[in-house]
Formats: sequence, C-alpha cells, structure tokens
Amino acid sequence: MNIIYKLILTAAIVAIGAMTLLAGSINNKEAERIALATAPIVQEAVQHKSEEWEKYYPRQYSSWKKTKDGDELLDMLKEKPQLSVLWAGYGFSKDYNAPRGHYYALQDNVNTLRTGAPTDGETGPMPTACWTCKSTDVPRIQERDGELEYFTGKWAKYGNEIVNTIGCANCHSNETGELAVRILHLNKGLEAAGLPKFEDSTHQEKRNLVCAQCHSEYYFKKTKWTDENGNNKIANVVTYPWANGLTVEGMEKYYDDENFTDWTHKISKTKMLKAQHPGYELFKTGIHAQKGVSCADCHMPYTQEGSVKYSDHQLQNPLETMDRSCMPCHRENEKKLKDIVHRKFERKEQLHELAMDNLAKAHLETAKAMEAGASDSELEAVRADIRSAQWKWDYAVASHPGFFHAPEETLRILSVANETAMQARLKLVSILADHNVRKYIAPDFSTKEKAQKIAGVPLQKLVDEKLKFKATLEKEWYKQAEKNYNLNAKKSRVGLDDAQTAYSK
Amino acid sequence: MNIIYKLILTAAIVAIGAMTLLAGSINNKEAERIALATAPIVQEAVQHKSEEWEKYYPRQYSSWKKTKDGDELLDMLKEKPQLSVLWAGYGFSKDYNAPRGHYYALQDNVNTLRTGAPTDGETGPMPTACWTCKSTDVPRIQERDGELEYFTGKWAKYGNEIVNTIGCANCHSNETGELAVRILHLNKGLEAAGLPKFEDSTHQEKRNLVCAQCHSEYYFKKTKWTDENGNNKIANVVTYPWANGLTVEGMEKYYDDENFTDWTHKISKTKMLKAQHPGYELFKTGIHAQKGVSCADCHMPYTQEGSVKYSDHQLQNPLETMDRSCMPCHRENEKKLKDIVHRKFERKEQLHELAMDNLAKAHLETAKAMEAGASDSELEAVRADIRSAQWKWDYAVASHPGFFHAPEETLRILSVANETAMQARLKLVSILADHNVRKYIAPDFSTKEKAQKIAGVPLQKLVDEKLKFKATLEKEWYKQAEKNYNLNAKKSRVGLDDAQTAYSK
Repeated sequence: MNIIYKLILTAAIVAIGAMTLLAGSINNKEAERIALATAPIVQEAVQHKSEEWEKYYPRQYSSWKKTKDGDELLDMLKEKPQLSVLWAGYGFSKDYNAPRGHYYALQDNVNTLRTGAPTDGETGPMPTACWTCKSTDVPRIQERDGELEYFTGKWAKYGNEIVNTIGCANCHSNETGELAVRILHLNKGLEAAGLPKFEDSTHQEKRNLVCAQCHSEYYFKKTKWTDENGNNKIANVVTYPWANGLTVEGMEKYYDDENFTDWTHKISKTKMLKAQHPGYELFKTGIHAQKGVSCADCHMPYTQEGSVKYSDHQLQNPLETMDRSCMPCHRENEKKLKDIVHRKFERKEQLHELAMDNLAKAHLETAKAMEAGASDSELEAVRADIRSAQWKWDYAVASHPGFFHAPEETLRILSVANETAMQARLKLVSILADHNVRKYIAPDFSTKEKAQKIAGVPLQKLVDEKLKFKATLEKEWYKQAEKNYNLNAKKSRVGLDDAQTAYSK
Repeated sequence: MNIIYKLILTAAIVAIGAMTLLAGSINNKEAERIALATAPIVQEAVQHKSEEWEKYYPRQYSSWKKTKDGDELLDMLKEKPQLSVLWAGYGFSKDYNAPRGHYYALQDNVNTLRTGAPTDGETGPMPTACWTCKSTDVPRIQERDGELEYFTGKWAKYGNEIVNTIGCANCHSNETGELAVRILHLNKGLEAAGLPKFEDSTHQEKRNLVCAQCHSEYYFKKTKWTDENGNNKIANVVTYPWANGLTVEGMEKYYDDENFTDWTHKISKTKMLKAQHPGYELFKTGIHAQKGVSCADCHMPYTQEGSVKYSDHQLQNPLETMDRSCMPCHRENEKKLKDIVHRKFERKEQLHELAMDNLAKAHLETAKAMEAGASDSELEAVRADIRSAQWKWDYAVASHPGFFHAPEETLRILSVANETAMQARLKLVSILADHNVRKYIAPDFSTKEKAQKIAGVPLQKLVDEKLKFKATLEKEWYKQAEKNYNLNAKKSRVGLDDAQTAYSK
C-alpha cells in the first residue's frame, strides 16, 4: 500500500505540475490575446514616427519595415523612351522611376529630379502639395498649421519637417489603432462623388480607402484664401476630380469643365492633363472589386504566427504572396494563375506601345505643322484630340497595375486613347499638306537620350544641381528634424542616405 | 383476441400493399434508369432524322426541339449599316441576320440571299461546302458519296438531300449515344494544330469539340482530285487554318502564307479575308476555358427531372438559364452577374463601332484614291493594312459572343484592328494629297439602304429571285426528300415553310 500511495502521490504531483504549466501557457496566450485586443495609445505628439508604434504592434511594424525589400530601381524613361516626348515640358520627362516600397516613398520624392534642387525654403519648382502622399508628417503639419497653410508655398518649405515616410499614422488612429484617414481631401472627394464618407464606409471599404487616399487620381486645385493676419494666399489643394463619377470620361469632363491644365506641352503646345495614379478608381471597375475584394485582402494578406493572426504590412505585389493572397479564393496552381496574369500584362503592353507611339508622333507632327506655319486655330482640334488621348492613355497606365486590377477597362481606355491619337494624326497629315509638307517622318525617339534631347531636358545640369542639393540642404533638413525630435534617423533612415537614384547609377 | 388478430391482419395486408406499390415504384424507376443507361441503337439508315432518336432520348429530344423558341429575326445590316460597306462584293453585304436557334439553322441557310436563287442542281453562287454545318444529312452524304465528292459542285446539288437541320447525329454516335463527330475535317484541323484528335480528347474537351466542329474559323480549301471514273474535279473542302496555332495572328499568317483570299473587295479592290465564327478559338483564350469549363457546361446545363439528370439541349444564351448555368459555380445574384456581362458588351460595342467606322472609311477612301489615279502599287500597303485590319475586326466580332467568352482578347484584337485601319487611313490622306484630293469625306453609310447602295447590292432583284426559288425549287426539294424517306416533314419542318426572313418582313 505504501508503494501504491507513493505512486499516486507522485502522479498527482506530476499532474499538478503539468496543469500549472498548461494553465501558465494558456494564461500567457490569453494575456497576449488581451494585450493585442486592447488598443494601446500611441502618444499624439510622436505618432508620426512609426517606430513609436513598434512596441505595441511589433508584427505589423516589422512587416511594414520589409517594404525596404522592394528596392529595385527601374528607370522608366529608359524602358519606355516615348515617355520623355509625351511629358515634354513637365517634370516627368526629366526623371521617372517605377515605384518602390513605401519605405522609399519619401526619399524617392526627395531624390527625383522632378522636385528639383531648392536652395532654401522659398525655392524649388514644386508646391508643398507634392509631399502629401509621402509622409506621416503631412497630417501632423495639416493639423498644426491648418490645411490651407499646408497647401501654400513651395515644396522646400517643409523639407525639414516632412522626414518620415508613409507609415502607421497615415492609416491608423493613434488612440484605437483602427483604420483612420486624417487628411481632409479624401472625404471631400467622396462627398463630391456622392459616396459615403470614410467614417460612414464599411470596414471592407475602409480597407480600400486608406489606400485610395493616395492611390487615386487628383490635381492641385488653386484656392485663394486669407490667413489670420489678413494675408492673401494661394493654396494648391490636393483635390479628387470625382464630381462626375469615378470614370475616366467623368474625370476628363470635370477637368475640361474646370478648364484645368497641368502644363502646356513643350513640343506641341497642347494644354495637357497629367493623370496621377487612379489605382482605386480603375480597380473599382474590375472583377475583384466587384466581388467585394479590398486592396488589403491581396496586398496585406492575413498571416498566422503562432496564435496570432495579423495583416501583413509589407504591401507588395501579391504574386509574391500567392499562398496567402490568391489561394484563399482561387483553387488553382500558382503557375497557372501567373500565366493568366502574364497574358493580361502582354495585352496591355501591346496597346500601351501603340498608343505611346501614336501620341509621341502626334506631338512631333504638331510641332512640324507649327514650324510650317499652321496657326493655333488650324491646330485646335488636333490639340483637343492629343489632350484627350494622352489623358486616357496616362490614366490607363499610371494606375499600375490596371492591367491586373481591371484588364478590360484598361484595354478599352488604351484603345480609345489610341483611336483619338490617330484621329489627331489623321488631321495632321491634311494640315501638313496644306502647308506643303508631305510624308513627314517624326524624329527618332527610340532611346532615352534621343527622347530627352527632343524634349529639351538638360539632364546633366539637373543631376548636378540635384546632387548639390542632396549634399547640402537635404542633409540640413534631417539635422533640424532630429534636433526637433521629429526624426529618429537611426531607426527610420537606415540605408536611405545613400539610397540609389536612377541618375546616380 | 379475435379483434386484435383482425387488426394485425389488416395492418399486415395494408403494409404488404404499400410495400408492393413501393417496390413497383422502385422497379419502375430502376427500369427507367437501366433503360436510360443502356444505349439503344438508332438505325444507321435513319439516324439523320432527329425524330428517330426521340423514343430513346425523349428529354434530350424535346429540349433540342425547343431551339425553335429562339426565333427572333434580327437584320444585322440594319443594326450595323457599316457591314454592307465592309463586305461589299461578298454575300454578307446582301443579307446577314443574327443567328437563331439550331432548329432554324438549315432553313436560314436556304432563306438567306447569300445562297442565291438556284434553278436546278447546277446553278447558284455557292459551293456544297455551305451546307456543312447545317444538317445531319451532311455526314450521311459524306459517308455515302465520299468527302471529296461531297465538297464538289454547287450548293443546289444537295438541296433535295440536305433537309434535316442540325440534330442528334451531328454530335452523337447512333450506336452508343456517346459524343461523336463524323465529319473528317475536325480531326485534320486538330492534327494540324498539334492537338489530340477528337477520339483521344478528354470527355470535357469533347464537350467543346462537338460545338467546335462548326463554331470555329474555317475556309474552303480548293483541292484538286480525280474521281473513280478518272474525272478531274475541284473540291472546296472545309479546312481550319490552325497550323500556326489557334490565335488570330497565327491564322492570319496561315492565310497570308497560303496566299488565300475569300473575295476581292468591290469598293477598295482589296484581297479580303472573311472570318467565319472562331467561337471555339476565342473561347479558349478566356477565363472560363482556362478554368476547364466547356461549352456544354453553360449552354447545355445539367437539368434534373424526377430521378433523371440530363443535359439541356436547348442550346441557348446561358443568361436564360443562369440558375443552372452560372449558379453552380458563381455565388452571386443574377442581377449583379448580368450587369457585369452587360458592361463587357458595352466595352466591345464601343471598340466595334470605332473599328467598323474606320474600316468602312478606309475602303471608301481607297476607292477615291483609285478614282483620282492612284496605282495599285501606291495602294499596296494600304490594302495590306485593310486586309489585316478587317480580318482582325471580323474575327473578334464574328465569334459571337467573344465579348463574354474572352473579353480581354476581344478588346485587344478590336483595338489592333482599329489601329491598323487607322494606319491605312493615315497613308490614304497622303496618297489622296499626292493626287490633289484634299479633305475628302467618304459618303454617308449610316443606313442599310445607303450602305447597300454604296456596295452595289441590287436588293430587290435578289429578293425577287429568292422568293421565286422558294416558291419553286425549294418546295421540290422537300417533296423529293420525303419520297426518298430522308425527310419527315410533319415532324421536322413544323413552322418552317413560312419561316420569316428579314427580306420578307
């Protein structure tokens, strides 16, 4: 009996120990669950620094940080030399790289030749609005200085303030962690389009709208205002042209009705529109959106780590995360799906090239007609075609990757763009003949060098100025920002100071 | 006890009765199941008469018969007047109605002005090959006379033989009821394309191929042969141009390499190609085919009647049978799916109209250039463009409904077609200017009447001749066929003798 008693006692002790361990484990998990479910408050004053969110949201933060992996620098003006002709006289003809990870968004904005080489807060070609989609500092400054003051002045005005790239505070409430958009123009756009405000949207739609605040078509609307000291000022306010709906035709009508022009084309003297990146609008016409899929479903797939499920914040091409992005819905092998996507890409590429070729030639043939003596009134209809055609072409391709999000609408728009460019060219042959120019062949624009020469881009000068700016004023900006506790460079600028630029290669 | 005994006895009798009825019912169902699973043999000599299949396949037969419901007559030359210009000099410029149910396939072939008004077996503009996709009598005659003899001679040669519309024997073995294709050119086409023969294909692919034997691109290949009596003959053999693959570009290359021409355009003197109906080929590029869906899955949905499940043979627009055609895979409401389909249609229509407009103008501008003195060598590149452009446009739209089966490929092809038509027009402005013609505006082709006048179609004459043919030779054909036991007019020609034609309205 004594032995049996001892055995029972031993077993009981072992069992108690195991239960304790198990209970401990359960409690730990439960504590973690509660911690995760309880919204910690990130202090308002530091919310623009994403690293301040790390301790509460370690998984989201470290996956967000992985946007640093998307570092490939692709010089689109080399890939598609026609672009420098199409954008002649506009910043994009100087420098345009394929977008990289969010980690580089702000740095690439600083690096690009488009933002020029300011020497102080008053200089530089671009307005403050150019920062708008690049940084968590933007809502901070808008809330501090007021929206209209933020949108007033030159880009360099905020160089020492806007130093943290797109991050947590652009999409999340610092108090609850919930999805939140702080810039004011999104709701204005939604209201103009007759859509529910962000706050009144479904959770699934919010998972689109946090992206849509930037990945949308917009323009800088000139807005006169008077500050509290009675000074008359002009703001360039980021505005979505959605009052006629979210279609390419609706927006074109909006711009035409507003008599809006982004720039006058250097070669053809056409009053042009530059499409930004109507990713949201085009996505909405595609089958994924129609099935209720949101941006986050594919680009931020749910990820399981131990007992925790969270949204991946790396925000990359879903073809890199097909197991989590595609496979929850598609029961097909990855190779097959990739082949289908590739075919979509090829179709877009074919129409893209056709439209670019005809558009570039239309600009150059217009220049020839001007040289031969054609008047503005003779060229009016041609320029109207060019404006419309290039708007549509740009809309279809600036919205990367429209070919996947909405392949049919993308092909339709590219096709109409090309038709309209050809209509311009058809008129131009007649006009040229009227001025005794026959069988004119536009100059060769088959390389970036040739195209930039035609577009009159003084590349080396721009690069030299930019590098000087980067060696001087830009460095100053980060020093000041660190001094003001707005930047934690050791955490948030790793690998950025020598970040590659296309022109430095 | 006596009462209890009687009650038990009564209950037992009732139970036995019920069991007998139940067993009977089960046996009946089982007998039906066995009858259905056992392949009855339809006598070879009568298999071309679909009504001979009725007693064995009553459900399939009566649903097939319902193709009679698809009787709407839509004059496409009225809907799209450009067509008469595009097909000037070719039969389709005379008469072209939207396709109706299979029940009318043969009658509509006899009725159309395209097949002319023969007065005996030797006359009439078309070759025998024009019957090929219209009747169960075609494989019968091919097997009796030989394939090459069948493809030799004028259409009217077989008017008294080819009298039963598309039916059972076109797709099914009379011995096993299994899917079977008897015409020989399908396997030749599949072999040329490097694809498995019909017999070696999967069951699911056979559910495409029985449709593909007709709903494909083909041409009449001139083939010299010598009959058993030593007579030299020329056959027009239905041939699929698939040797370079099933793409629009591959087939165009095939025709160009063969130096093949369907007809010389009456207005522009271009050596043209007429696309037939590459439904199968275009479908194969679309998402449904890529997911392994077959024609029959949507157009012949499985239907449950009592204990029997069978394929619906009504072969109609799946939007009429969405509950059985779409809903087994799509979990969405019908309205939403229809809206998505409608948007696809609208996109196609837009590019369709653009391409037709530019193509029609290219033909007319070429005629003007000829009139002004342009030589064939000056117009060579223009005509090459027109040929290529019209081939692509036709390919995209003749394959009804490509906009649904393969919306992206359809839009791509239409876009390239339009680009190429515009390239022709661009050259034409220069050529016209070389011949002192400036700002030429092509004549108005906005109604069927105007377009047919431009195309030189003597409509009333053609109608008169046709009506005379219908009142005489056609009636003779059916009399002879009945006499030879090849036609059971009371069963198979119900409602056909007064079947509407566009020109009789």
